[in-house]
Amino acid sequence: MALNAVKRDIPSRIEGYGNTGEKLFEGAFARKPEGFRASAMMRSRGPNDPTKFLGSVKEAIAASGLKSGMTISFHHHLRNGDFIVNQVLDECAKAGIRDLTLFPTALFGVHKAIIPHIKSGVVRRIMGSVNGPIGQLVSEGGMEVPVVLRSHGGRPRAVIAGDVHIDVAFIAAPTADVGGNMSGRAGKSACGSLGYAFTDAEYANCVIALTDNLQHYPIAPISIPGTFVDFVVQVGVIGDPDGIVSGTTRVTRDPLRLLIARHASKLIEASPYFKDGLSFQTGAGGIPLAVTAFMKEAMKRRRVRGGFGLGGITGYFVDLLKEGLLKKLMDVQSFDHEAVESISSDPRHIEISADWYANPWNCGAAVNELDVVILGATEVDMNFNANVNTEADGALLHGIGGHQDTAAGAKLTIIAQPLLRGRIPCVVDSVHTVTTPGEAIDALVTEFGVTINPRRRDLIDACGEAKGKNAVPLVPLDELAERAKRMSGPMSPLRQGDRIVGIVEWRDGTVIDVVRQIFPENISS
Amino acid sequence: MALNAVKRDIPSRIEGYGNTGEKLFEGAFARKPEGFRASAMMRSRGPNDPTKFLGSVKEAIAASGLKSGMTISFHHHLRNGDFIVNQVLDECAKAGIRDLTLFPTALFGVHKAIIPHIKSGVVRRIMGSVNGPIGQLVSEGGMEVPVVLRSHGGRPRAVIAGDVHIDVAFIAAPTADVGGNMSGRAGKSACGSLGYAFTDAEYANCVIALTDNLQHYPIAPISIPGTFVDFVVQVGVIGDPDGIVSGTTRVTRDPLRLLIARHASKLIEASPYFKDGLSFQTGAGGIPLAVTAFMKEAMKRRRVRGGFGLGGITGYFVDLLKEGLLKKLMDVQSFDHEAVESISSDPRHIEISADWYANPWNCGAAVNELDVVILGATEVDMNFNANVNTEADGALLHGIGGHQDTAAGAKLTIIAQPLLRGRIPCVVDSVHTVTTPGEAIDALVTEFGVTINPRRRDLIDACGEAKGKNAVPLVPLDELAERAKRMSGPMSPLRQGDRIVGIVEWRDGTVIDVVRQIFPENISS
Repeated sequence: MALNAVKRDIPSRIEGYGNTGEKLFEGAFARKPEGFRASAMMRSRGPNDPTKFLGSVKEAIAASGLKSGMTISFHHHLRNGDFIVNQVLDECAKAGIRDLTLFPTALFGVHKAIIPHIKSGVVRRIMGSVNGPIGQLVSEGGMEVPVVLRSHGGRPRAVIAGDVHIDVAFIAAPTADVGGNMSGRAGKSACGSLGYAFTDAEYANCVIALTDNLQHYPIAPISIPGTFVDFVVQVGVIGDPDGIVSGTTRVTRDPLRLLIARHASKLIEASPYFKDGLSFQTGAGGIPLAVTAFMKEAMKRRRVRGGFGLGGITGYFVDLLKEGLLKKLMDVQSFDHEAVESISSDPRHIEISADWYANPWNCGAAVNELDVVILGATEVDMNFNANVNTEADGALLHGIGGHQDTAAGAKLTIIAQPLLRGRIPCVVDSVHTVTTPGEAIDALVTEFGVTINPRRRDLIDACGEAKGKNAVPLVPLDELAERAKRMSGPMSPLRQGDRIVGIVEWRDGTVIDVVRQIFPENISS
Repeated sequence: MALNAVKRDIPSRIEGYGNTGEKLFEGAFARKPEGFRASAMMRSRGPNDPTKFLGSVKEAIAASGLKSGMTISFHHHLRNGDFIVNQVLDECAKAGIRDLTLFPTALFGVHKAIIPHIKSGVVRRIMGSVNGPIGQLVSEGGMEVPVVLRSHGGRPRAVIAGDVHIDVAFIAAPTADVGGNMSGRAGKSACGSLGYAFTDAEYANCVIALTDNLQHYPIAPISIPGTFVDFVVQVGVIGDPDGIVSGTTRVTRDPLRLLIARHASKLIEASPYFKDGLSFQTGAGGIPLAVTAFMKEAMKRRRVRGGFGLGGITGYFVDLLKEGLLKKLMDVQSFDHEAVESISSDPRHIEISADWYANPWNCGAAVNELDVVILGATEVDMNFNANVNTEADGALLHGIGGHQDTAAGAKLTIIAQPLLRGRIPCVVDSVHTVTTPGEAIDALVTEFGVTINPRRRDLIDACGEAKGKNAVPLVPLDELAERAKRMSGPMSPLRQGDRIVGIVEWRDGTVIDVVRQIFPENISS
């Protein structure tokens, strides 16, 4: 065991993961890359070679040379509407393939259908975000090998640095042609950006495009060129449109959450970043969307014209673009119909890969250019460390997303969250799991006001200067913690096992925390 | 010495190039890749790292770590208007850097300014197309190390396969932002597609963007993301607009050339490829443009709607797109103002990299999907081998361009050329230099008619079926050769030295021919 830089005890060896000696988290920007990028197997294809168009997923699996023990990857742009992961694993099981490492960008509720394949040994290991039922299974010890969680930037970093090598990438493509050119913009399963799939296409030894909208060569625009794609398969439907994109994402109507959003908006307005060129990311949650709405109001009032909006893009951001309050959108993931429509028609709405969005090991990801990001957390502790992965019962139910990346990149990282969720405090002495270290978090905003990380003296001063209607209600962290304890009453300590079921990597590939098995008696509900 | 598949004697070792034993040309599709793609050094850049924006080329050279003996690369999208190659080499010379390998996609007349740097040893080796004065210098023995010529597809193949590793890529960018995102679409030096620069950006250890149009982060659209770019330098002007793009490219008015174009057009119309979905590449020469004009007429007359136009794109292709006779354009190089305007505004006009365009060692380049290509040649011989590199005096004055790639990829490869240029025959017993093997060439069209490669019995039959106004005048190759000999009179044999001054690689990296030193008395006029 050894303590890492956020004082977590990390075993020197973790079964199913490896030695951690060289991989202890040392600080948000401590680790630098060495050596050369990994790469994929070279392939060639001439004009007389057989077509890459195959009749079924089964044929494609056979043609890819996929074997037991290999690593397969998927993107999560179809979210809870995805039909591809389940279908591919069903076919793998039928083909007698076992011990696969599943390397999705994220799994959702719909993927609970693969639980039998985990239990039967078709899937031996998962590296990727496990939202919901698979996370619950993992938390209760349902997999022999720990899950490895990486951020949106940490995942492409791991591929490019050679930590993970993808044998076969299965890429769901809402539009594709027989040459394998892919796009998410059109088709009945349109999802907009294909941002999470780019690195997989570039670094996998074999790439299979699965589409329900096959077009003549070449489609336009093209997100991922067919030069990376070995096989193209037409399937009936790649996903359920209702699960892929939501209707218009909605601002919260809850007065408590609106109050939090109002506080956050005041903090941004008081900060030095609220000026022409302001860039920000707010994501799709109720509070962040409300912050966007308040910022829009403030930008209009103070005649501030923003620069770019980043990340998962919603209709709220599209409106800001249309109204000239933002000049560009950089879109790694399109959350709703408005975003899909916009990325398909407006050249100022730029599709970016997850590498481009957030990888710390390239020549400069978009998150580095970010002024402000609004994030959530299940817990924040007295060192401003944030937990987004585990719930109060210790269950590993959420992925990291872009949390680490934007927190590290943005000039002002705000966690906006109610002080309690039900009876459970969001401010604690020490978070159950460190997802993002306090050094990357600048402020916590709750219904009781704005709590600024003491290392950001400049922000505290800036808030002090805001007066009258613009005054920012500052609350020290210890006062907030006291209040949380009073309100929640005594919490019984969490009983957990020794067995490590999950590894949380910092975006640079070091281990920032581990997640241990939980016991059924913890489970809240 | 050993004979390769086109019966050229290739020395087993070539000074300054290496052993050729494993690299003898074996046939257009014989060689397949093995192993993994090469890669670039990993770099990282965090939000607190110093800016990548530097004040001068000199500073950028210093920051890049460029040292004597290294390899530097450039693209030729600024063509004969390029100011960057000369400027960078001047600064390298001032910095005392020597023995550089210059790896441009192509050099033009304007680059004769680097001849002093070749003579003084700043540049030791050139790998790339040498059009004009540098070719003349090389031909006369002005460089110690032979020039290596590669096709537009062969060059990215060489980089991706690791045959060439780029230490520093200097990328002229008509538009860029401080994050290094680049585009050729806008700015006073707009050149449209940046197709030749993509692979360099992805595989170089250090990438420097040089721009005369610096914009706020992020520009849109973005061709090459800043994630690959280490440094950004603002320079006064990157090029001379008159040399970068031409005004409207023009169809020939020469009756002889128009006749050739008419014959070629009839051949295409008689071929099985003249139907809906027809894809073709014609380039920017006078005859090919006339073929485009005739094909447009034929497509309208026979109500054929084409698929895509490929390659270097001209206003003629843009017109076909606008009129609905082509559905898409795939643009590796924009030849004129109309093409630049179109790629900037029409999403059906797709920017493609040279790798995507033509690399034989990826999962399928665009050339593979091509139905018809019209090419030129300085000579074609009795085996249909074509020479595009050397002139009648043996001087190495032209690059390969996409000749090999499109010839290998297209279903119908036509060389359209007058039988004589001045008194010099274009059909000869054996070409001076084999650029493209006869197995990849289907027809030669001269003012005397259409000569079909006998291995294309199907085409000969198809032409035989075309009657009346559509009749295709067929001429056997030996009759054409006889006629050429009669018309040109006896040619004195070319005297050349033993020393190898140039290597012509086939697109798969094998040696298809070598070019030897010429003597001044050869030089015509």
